[in-house]
Amino acid sequence: MARAPHARYAFIGDTARLPYGSKSRRTIARYAAQSARFLVGEQGADYLVIACNTASALALDAIQEAVPSSISVIGVIEPGAETALRASRTGDVLVIATDATVHSHAYAAACRARDLRALEKACPLLVPLVEEGWTDPDMQTGGVTAQVLRIYLDELLAEAASAGMNPDTLVLGCTHYPLLKPLIQEAIPAGIQVIDSAESAAEKLVMHLSGDFDAPPPFNPGDPIINCFATDSVEKFERLGSRFLGRPTGPVELVDLGG
Amino acid sequence: MARAPHARYAFIGDTARLPYGSKSRRTIARYAAQSARFLVGEQGADYLVIACNTASALALDAIQEAVPSSISVIGVIEPGAETALRASRTGDVLVIATDATVHSHAYAAACRARDLRALEKACPLLVPLVEEGWTDPDMQTGGVTAQVLRIYLDELLAEAASAGMNPDTLVLGCTHYPLLKPLIQEAIPAGIQVIDSAESAAEKLVMHLSGDFDAPPPFNPGDPIINCFATDSVEKFERLGSRFLGRPTGPVELVDLGG
Repeated sequence: MARAPHARYAFIGDTARLPYGSKSRRTIARYAAQSARFLVGEQGADYLVIACNTASALALDAIQEAVPSSISVIGVIEPGAETALRASRTGDVLVIATDATVHSHAYAAACRARDLRALEKACPLLVPLVEEGWTDPDMQTGGVTAQVLRIYLDELLAEAASAGMNPDTLVLGCTHYPLLKPLIQEAIPAGIQVIDSAESAAEKLVMHLSGDFDAPPPFNPGDPIINCFATDSVEKFERLGSRFLGRPTGPVELVDLGG
Repeated sequence: MARAPHARYAFIGDTARLPYGSKSRRTIARYAAQSARFLVGEQGADYLVIACNTASALALDAIQEAVPSSISVIGVIEPGAETALRASRTGDVLVIATDATVHSHAYAAACRARDLRALEKACPLLVPLVEEGWTDPDMQTGGVTAQVLRIYLDELLAEAASAGMNPDTLVLGCTHYPLLKPLIQEAIPAGIQVIDSAESAAEKLVMHLSGDFDAPPPFNPGDPIINCFATDSVEKFERLGSRFLGRPTGPVELVDLGG
């Protein structure tokens, strides 16, 4: 929305069946394809951004097959690896993500295609900690999250060291992790740069849109139109979504994808 | 299985759509009714035990309506409150559970009907911590869980004190919490008794079965027959389910409830 404020946005959160990160490829693909068909078939989307790393990692093909081939489908994995390539000098990249994303090894493959070495680690507790709002470094609750991050990241750094890697880049491979960025930066050595793959995906979308839109104008929070949909718990979506968006989501419409 | 080892058991875990604890009544009722129809219609169940506290709290009526009225449906809320009544001398009861169970106030209502005062607290991080296996008090990871429990339980005890309550009983209102019992007992004053509502539900089932079964024989792990079904990730179900069951689940069959 910051980079293309004059586009119309429709966002669906499959809140009835989240989280995807602990589910199988087959189930994730089925659910993600239903959401994609809703956005294209009922909301008239021309471009699909798969903001969820897990759905990007496991279901990008299934989503593209579920919609007409004229629809551009943009995931977050390839753009994230592309930004890692630009950021890394050593060529050694760390990735933290959900269980399903890590087991798909989608980031490792995207990095390998760019001659980067990637080491991935599943961090299943981070999404629940963000959903619970335990993200403030100055609170006792944020202290718990800091400790969880230290356990995960120390294991990851030790594993990288024993593999002879010299990582200088950490990719946040899940939508929720950017809300933990201050805590993550405290838990890793200063020489490691933290990359948000969502920012890279937004860049890629703007390139797709370049025929329709001018160079990035300053962010105007009054301008972009966003219609939000959820498959359950619209109140919870409004509360959490507003924290992610940095402004109110507006009214969220309940939709039934049939599951 | 310990109390009625000669029964045949069929267990379904709706792993494609878990956790229920963060979802709405409408969605939980729809999902739970689908599982109930599977157990009765395709597995021939005569009795339904709703082992999930969230489904018991929000969907017991919907489940009973989804199956023939000849089928006995046993939830965990009423038995849990009944055991609290037997355990409590002060009449003041604490309940920890998922978000959805707490917001339903099902335990408070069941306690009120027995002249008990109940104070309920949602503890959304406990299920993910158990699923991650961070339950060993002697590990650094178990130390994190101990700290999370202290935050939740200190808040609950402070709230009880400021309401003028003198609690002597804590009900574990979620299937996952019994695996945290040692850590929970360390986090609360010694005078508070910890109650597992699943044990009370098993007692209630045995009373229903009393015509068909004799008095409780000693537990024979070779005897009971259990057939397990899951809607996703059968490997994960086998791994976690065996931890809960205390013996291998045996092969788990994947079923599609249409969601």
